[in-house]
Amino acid sequence: MSKQKNINTDGGRGKRAGIPEVVFARFKDDASLTRAVENLLKENGRVLVTKCSAGQMSVLEKRFKEKIKTDRNAGICIVGKINPIRNAGSVAIISAGSSDYFVAEEAALSAEFLGLKVLRHYDCGVAGIHRMDCALEKIRKFDVVIVVAGMEGALPSVIGGLVKQPVIAVPTSVGYGTGAGGLSALMSMLNSCSPGIAVVNIDNGFGAAALAYKMIRWIKK
Amino acid sequence: MSKQKNINTDGGRGKRAGIPEVVFARFKDDASLTRAVENLLKENGRVLVTKCSAGQMSVLEKRFKEKIKTDRNAGICIVGKINPIRNAGSVAIISAGSSDYFVAEEAALSAEFLGLKVLRHYDCGVAGIHRMDCALEKIRKFDVVIVVAGMEGALPSVIGGLVKQPVIAVPTSVGYGTGAGGLSALMSMLNSCSPGIAVVNIDNGFGAAALAYKMIRWIKK
Amino acid sequence: MSKQKNINTDGGRGKRAGIPEVVFARFKDDASLTRAVENLLKENGRVLVTKCSAGQMSVLEKRFKEKIKTDRNAGICIVGKINPIRNAGSVAIISAGSSDYFVAEEAALSAEFLGLKVLRHYDCGVAGIHRMDCALEKIRKFDVVIVVAGMEGALPSVIGGLVKQPVIAVPTSVGYGTGAGGLSALMSMLNSCSPGIAVVNIDNGFGAAALAYKMIRWIKK
Amino acid sequence: MSKQKNINTDGGRGKRAGIPEVVFARFKDDASLTRAVENLLKENGRVLVTKCSAGQMSVLEKRFKEKIKTDRNAGICIVGKINPIRNAGSVAIISAGSSDYFVAEEAALSAEFLGLKVLRHYDCGVAGIHRMDCALEKIRKFDVVIVVAGMEGALPSVIGGLVKQPVIAVPTSVGYGTGAGGLSALMSMLNSCSPGIAVVNIDNGFGAAALAYKMIRWIKK
Amino acid sequence: MSKQKNINTDGGRGKRAGIPEVVFARFKDDASLTRAVENLLKENGRVLVTKCSAGQMSVLEKRFKEKIKTDRNAGICIVGKINPIRNAGSVAIISAGSSDYFVAEEAALSAEFLGLKVLRHYDCGVAGIHRMDCALEKIRKFDVVIVVAGMEGALPSVIGGLVKQPVIAVPTSVGYGTGAGGLSALMSMLNSCSPGIAVVNIDNGFGAAALAYKMIRWIKK
Amino acid sequence: MSKQKNINTDGGRGKRAGIPEVVFARFKDDASLTRAVENLLKENGRVLVTKCSAGQMSVLEKRFKEKIKTDRNAGICIVGKINPIRNAGSVAIISAGSSDYFVAEEAALSAEFLGLKVLRHYDCGVAGIHRMDCALEKIRKFDVVIVVAGMEGALPSVIGGLVKQPVIAVPTSVGYGTGAGGLSALMSMLNSCSPGIAVVNIDNGFGAAALAYKMIRWIKK
Amino acid sequence: MSKQKNINTDGGRGKRAGIPEVVFARFKDDASLTRAVENLLKENGRVLVTKCSAGQMSVLEKRFKEKIKTDRNAGICIVGKINPIRNAGSVAIISAGSSDYFVAEEAALSAEFLGLKVLRHYDCGVAGIHRMDCALEKIRKFDVVIVVAGMEGALPSVIGGLVKQPVIAVPTSVGYGTGAGGLSALMSMLNSCSPGIAVVNIDNGFGAAALAYKMIRWIKK
Amino acid sequence: MSKQKNINTDGGRGKRAGIPEVVFARFKDDASLTRAVENLLKENGRVLVTKCSAGQMSVLEKRFKEKIKTDRNAGICIVGKINPIRNAGSVAIISAGSSDYFVAEEAALSAEFLGLKVLRHYDCGVAGIHRMDCALEKIRKFDVVIVVAGMEGALPSVIGGLVKQPVIAVPTSVGYGTGAGGLSALMSMLNSCSPGIAVVNIDNGFGAAALAYKMIRWIKK
Repeated sequence: MSKQKNINTDGGRGKRAGIPEVVFARFKDDASLTRAVENLLKENGRVLVTKCSAGQMSVLEKRFKEKIKTDRNAGICIVGKINPIRNAGSVAIISAGSSDYFVAEEAALSAEFLGLKVLRHYDCGVAGIHRMDCALEKIRKFDVVIVVAGMEGALPSVIGGLVKQPVIAVPTSVGYGTGAGGLSALMSMLNSCSPGIAVVNIDNGFGAAALAYKMIRWIKK
Repeated sequence: MSKQKNINTDGGRGKRAGIPEVVFARFKDDASLTRAVENLLKENGRVLVTKCSAGQMSVLEKRFKEKIKTDRNAGICIVGKINPIRNAGSVAIISAGSSDYFVAEEAALSAEFLGLKVLRHYDCGVAGIHRMDCALEKIRKFDVVIVVAGMEGALPSVIGGLVKQPVIAVPTSVGYGTGAGGLSALMSMLNSCSPGIAVVNIDNGFGAAALAYKMIRWIKK
Repeated sequence: MSKQKNINTDGGRGKRAGIPEVVFARFKDDASLTRAVENLLKENGRVLVTKCSAGQMSVLEKRFKEKIKTDRNAGICIVGKINPIRNAGSVAIISAGSSDYFVAEEAALSAEFLGLKVLRHYDCGVAGIHRMDCALEKIRKFDVVIVVAGMEGALPSVIGGLVKQPVIAVPTSVGYGTGAGGLSALMSMLNSCSPGIAVVNIDNGFGAAALAYKMIRWIKK
Repeated sequence: MSKQKNINTDGGRGKRAGIPEVVFARFKDDASLTRAVENLLKENGRVLVTKCSAGQMSVLEKRFKEKIKTDRNAGICIVGKINPIRNAGSVAIISAGSSDYFVAEEAALSAEFLGLKVLRHYDCGVAGIHRMDCALEKIRKFDVVIVVAGMEGALPSVIGGLVKQPVIAVPTSVGYGTGAGGLSALMSMLNSCSPGIAVVNIDNGFGAAALAYKMIRWIKK
Repeated sequence: MSKQKNINTDGGRGKRAGIPEVVFARFKDDASLTRAVENLLKENGRVLVTKCSAGQMSVLEKRFKEKIKTDRNAGICIVGKINPIRNAGSVAIISAGSSDYFVAEEAALSAEFLGLKVLRHYDCGVAGIHRMDCALEKIRKFDVVIVVAGMEGALPSVIGGLVKQPVIAVPTSVGYGTGAGGLSALMSMLNSCSPGIAVVNIDNGFGAAALAYKMIRWIKK
Repeated sequence: MSKQKNINTDGGRGKRAGIPEVVFARFKDDASLTRAVENLLKENGRVLVTKCSAGQMSVLEKRFKEKIKTDRNAGICIVGKINPIRNAGSVAIISAGSSDYFVAEEAALSAEFLGLKVLRHYDCGVAGIHRMDCALEKIRKFDVVIVVAGMEGALPSVIGGLVKQPVIAVPTSVGYGTGAGGLSALMSMLNSCSPGIAVVNIDNGFGAAALAYKMIRWIKK
Repeated sequence: MSKQKNINTDGGRGKRAGIPEVVFARFKDDASLTRAVENLLKENGRVLVTKCSAGQMSVLEKRFKEKIKTDRNAGICIVGKINPIRNAGSVAIISAGSSDYFVAEEAALSAEFLGLKVLRHYDCGVAGIHRMDCALEKIRKFDVVIVVAGMEGALPSVIGGLVKQPVIAVPTSVGYGTGAGGLSALMSMLNSCSPGIAVVNIDNGFGAAALAYKMIRWIKK
Repeated sequence: MSKQKNINTDGGRGKRAGIPEVVFARFKDDASLTRAVENLLKENGRVLVTKCSAGQMSVLEKRFKEKIKTDRNAGICIVGKINPIRNAGSVAIISAGSSDYFVAEEAALSAEFLGLKVLRHYDCGVAGIHRMDCALEKIRKFDVVIVVAGMEGALPSVIGGLVKQPVIAVPTSVGYGTGAGGLSALMSMLNSCSPGIAVVNIDNGFGAAALAYKMIRWIKK
């Protein structure tokens, strides 16, 4: 009954704001999703899709065949040219628990899509903080540190007191009871006593990667 | 216009539930407060008053003269016999920031009132966690550890991963923005990835001391 | 597309913090869950898994066969040596309604895994508090009391006024309307007028058992 | 600069809805407050003013002189004919703590204004519930029971399981931390496991009295 | 793995508190639910089950066969003797929208179970309040009025200004956006400018009926 | 077991309040929904159904056959005479993202049902606000502008500063983390620094259309 | 220590968006406030100041002397030419309680500043809705209706069902307990079952007037 | 009565985490505040104090005399050597309204303390976004952009779509009604559709400056 939908992608965003437009799949019907990917593929040669359900991935795989790479746990698809690592800069991604994997990988795959070198260091919660000691040596060599944590979200505060890099904190929806949905982790990160922590939305792994990329691309040059 | 108020104190509570009744001063008018203290003084020989404003303290000092000891910062008064330290047991009280002092001292003075030996170790936030190392040796000799923290409230998670004692976490209302009022700290403590942390209400230093006392008195005997 | 995941278990936690690491199953994919159990089984000889779904239990039963024991209602698995009751100490577990069973049993099975003797006294709500009288005699002989309640969560306040032991209050997500999710019960417990009640997160039966264990192991010794 | 304000009182409400209009003083400027009282005094011969500040009371006392009776703690004024007790029915008012006095008295004075006989039984919290036993005998002879409680608000659940009368629960804003403002008490009362408890707004002592009056006047007749 | 569960029903509650114990089905597993019904059936001869899912109803129908009557929309079962209408008193039940039917019927069937005569007047929202005029004549002859409303929950305020009976307001979870879950309706009812409205929990039709019953049985006698 | 339900539609609402009654399908069972549509079809000759699930649409299609038109994405059905465009006035509907389509179309189809001419301009988020320039020329010729946005909901503020028409802002539930459910968008719109923005409930596309219609029909005449 | 502040007023806004910029006084220091008024006075010949404290008014009166008109209750100042009533259109302003006066007058004085004719009809709550009957005749002759209400905020729903004009609902912060701050009234208005109600922020009388003005100026022309 | 307080400053933080410790004045008593400043002055030669009240400033001015510089609006003091501008890098600070001045200046003075060059561009809200055009040229030459906004907090989303630098968004507590306290602005910023925006706590100007400094010092080097 309704009119033909316009999908009004913003191909020039990469030039203007430094980050190419990506496709946020959730809430999109299959037709809109496919058209959005097609448009951006034509404009930019490659597209990142985030928060993509298993069902949506099947639709995209059918349409883009060998041109698509997917990670079901992280809800990520990349369509078109896989980026040769440009080594524009580097980011270390630390996660508090193995349950936070899906967000940490959204960040990691997004960072790689944007051309950053990525170190993954997962599953090192604050209850066993001594386990981080040798990892810190390695981490201190990277440009930016992304810390992903659910539940009480304390890890970025601890890391932020131990390294000189800018720390980007990503709260996750991992938890239960009062921790369900990630509000507890978010509030911890916003109220951190370690000064200078950048916070992004709950489960927003892509946002953290985009912020790391903006820091590196703009400031390093 | 209204009828005479009954102040219906519960003198037998010490025998029944192990902790004598104390007086919560906030919301009480001067007459009710004074009568409550008088009743319990008669029944128990000594009274602890918490959340007592400066104005209320003046009223009580005028009434109980040399029988009263007060700490204006902590909002605490003790009327009657100062407890000789019975050394029933011992509690280490750690606070994250110097702003949390008023709650940490409520806990410390309450614990001393109840006959516990108290170690105060204040102002050691998670952003400089390495500063705790030598203190930990000392802390590990106490029966119970109370950790007081506002803002992101991460300290109990870190301490809980480093000591074997039961840890009682007290969130404080110290903070601003999303941290104002203590909800952020409370949620951190409830969602701690260190298992076995006991949480009490925001700013409830007395409750933490009472819980430590119950643990020690009942379990140690 | 993503890299091999590290499962970075903390085998030494038992020695350091007094409680061995357990596996929180929710949010974990099957591969991560299995690997986490395998690692800890090797390190500690036995593993407790909490918040485990029926589907995850089937995966673990297939992998660990006769080495696993499960309770589907409580979402609990134990893999490896069933603990001979060491009688380190004892805990009485009281629940307000029969709907709170799933949390009460998480607490009870966790306590038994940790070597405590457990008394179960379920389904005794505050609306019929007189029914508790004869049970109280028995309960008063235990080291610690865990009280599990949803809806208005008033039971710990009442019990806390009747016994001398430390009371650990566990709010449950049982309820509807404003009570849905357990916030009402949690707030009741944090604001209890019975002093010295330890509160844990909503539905956190394991946390209550771990806290009871820490009290008993450390203080009693 | 602004136009003359209309004060548009509803003198006929007593006939229509069974309860005469009363004046809610908070947020009213002195002129509006005085005019509202004058209008209703003319229409009904007597007026109840609630949530009246000390400053507002002084204004009204100056205007209505010997015609006014006030209770500063309860924030209540009565202007005009003091009601001879009509003994239309009776209400027992129970409060949990002495800090809840200001709400309990708002209920009690309102009930007396409406012609009900009132029993005051204050300061009997759930932590010492055994203290209620002998009082219950007396309370069971009244038509309706109003229970006033702040903090965890558990008292109405306990009373509701012990008496046959309709119980009206009034949460108060007494508390601190998560209990500040009365939300914790309100949620407890709405989620009570004692069926058939009527809840009114936080600190709404007048509403509880009005409800008791409507029950008695309409149903008893 | 777990121990045999006790179902600890409270058969004497009818005598003590005026309302027989009913069974709240949600969160109960099938075995606990069945046992609870069996116990109370033996003690009281008849049982009311609320918040019962379609699946649970099938289990109960299989067990109690011709002894059970069910209403799937309202989530209500009655097992045992259907009450002959005792005409202890009468209640008018008004609902704002046809979507509120499931709660209004929970109230109506509960009231009939308790022996009250019920008038159902459904689907008369405040946006067409003039439609109520002739209904009001009829409604004014009943002992108590229950008003059920979701969304903005304004109907009880309007009705409360037009009738002399006690009004019991039941917020429902009907709504979307900010109205989802019933909080908006609940807050409207608690803040009603019509004095003397009794509020119960969201979707708590049974609680409203129980309260009406307590008013009528106790006060009318 | 329950009584026959009354569906008490308000056929005269169109005359009285300017907008004919529509049917809100969510929470209605199939029988009530069908009867409501039948009643209003008889009274008004045509009916709009909103928030209609796919399952409910199938029921209505079966009943009303060729008389019904549906849009599954927007959850909208129209039964009876399709409105000839009366061109009473015109509304431009702008949406921020393609994910907001389902709400924008609810607004658009409702506006057309009410006889308004509609311009759809979808998918023009604030991150690429320059893309709106040429569209603004066109938009400025319409009577009213409806702006639909989820996530941070900033678009109405920006549009409101660029056009002279009344702007109606519709927050959508599109988002995740703290944006889930639409609260973030709603709060943005209520706090807009562009004065004179009308806000409706989250996802309430119909409400926006009805408001536009009321403005145009009443003020323009 | 800090740099000279720019006050960067937007004099062209009247041309661009139809409403001249006004000054929101709250949070501004005296120097910024004065400069903002001076700038706009030069650009537009007249200025409206909202949410102006008594102290700020004194500062402005001293500076602008006979050029300023103030209303302390409504927190409104007008500096410069008082608008001759242009009679561009008309708005009826209805308030629920006399406590809502300060918001209703903010709306009324703002509307007059913008050149609208204003009818004030205050203090007609829903508990006595019959009192509105004769007023409705008069109200129905105005272009737009603004309804101002605190507490349960039900009045706009009722009015919206009785008149054909667009209704703008303004929640106020009048209330206590759960109604404190205006959230209850806001939620009622957003969830109104009367379709087509425009909602603005809590206490935002100016916003309501600006919206009415935009409707009338743009649509009527 | 209480013991001597330790002020346990962390002088080595500058070396370890890149940012010297600063003093958060709120909640500190005068003695603790003075001691904290003295300690850090000795260790680092200069100290930044944030969230400092007028009263606290007077205490510090008395103690540190000509060594202190203060900004009462921004709540900032600098004690010791004023930093020669090291020009480590540069930051543009944009604020939405002149009411946000106090937070924007906290950021600006903190950035200057840390040795950054600062461009202030205040009072350019989204309702007049066209006013930013010429400013953008200048802003695009800075390393990092800090955007400070209260109310609906939309400005960072708009700026983020127009510049390539990393954008740090600071929500402020400026607003009223639902905007009071800054939650609305915070949520807007976390849910921005402009990817790669760093968010800090409400009113946390210092945190934004610290984050900008960490980006520049670490990445640029």
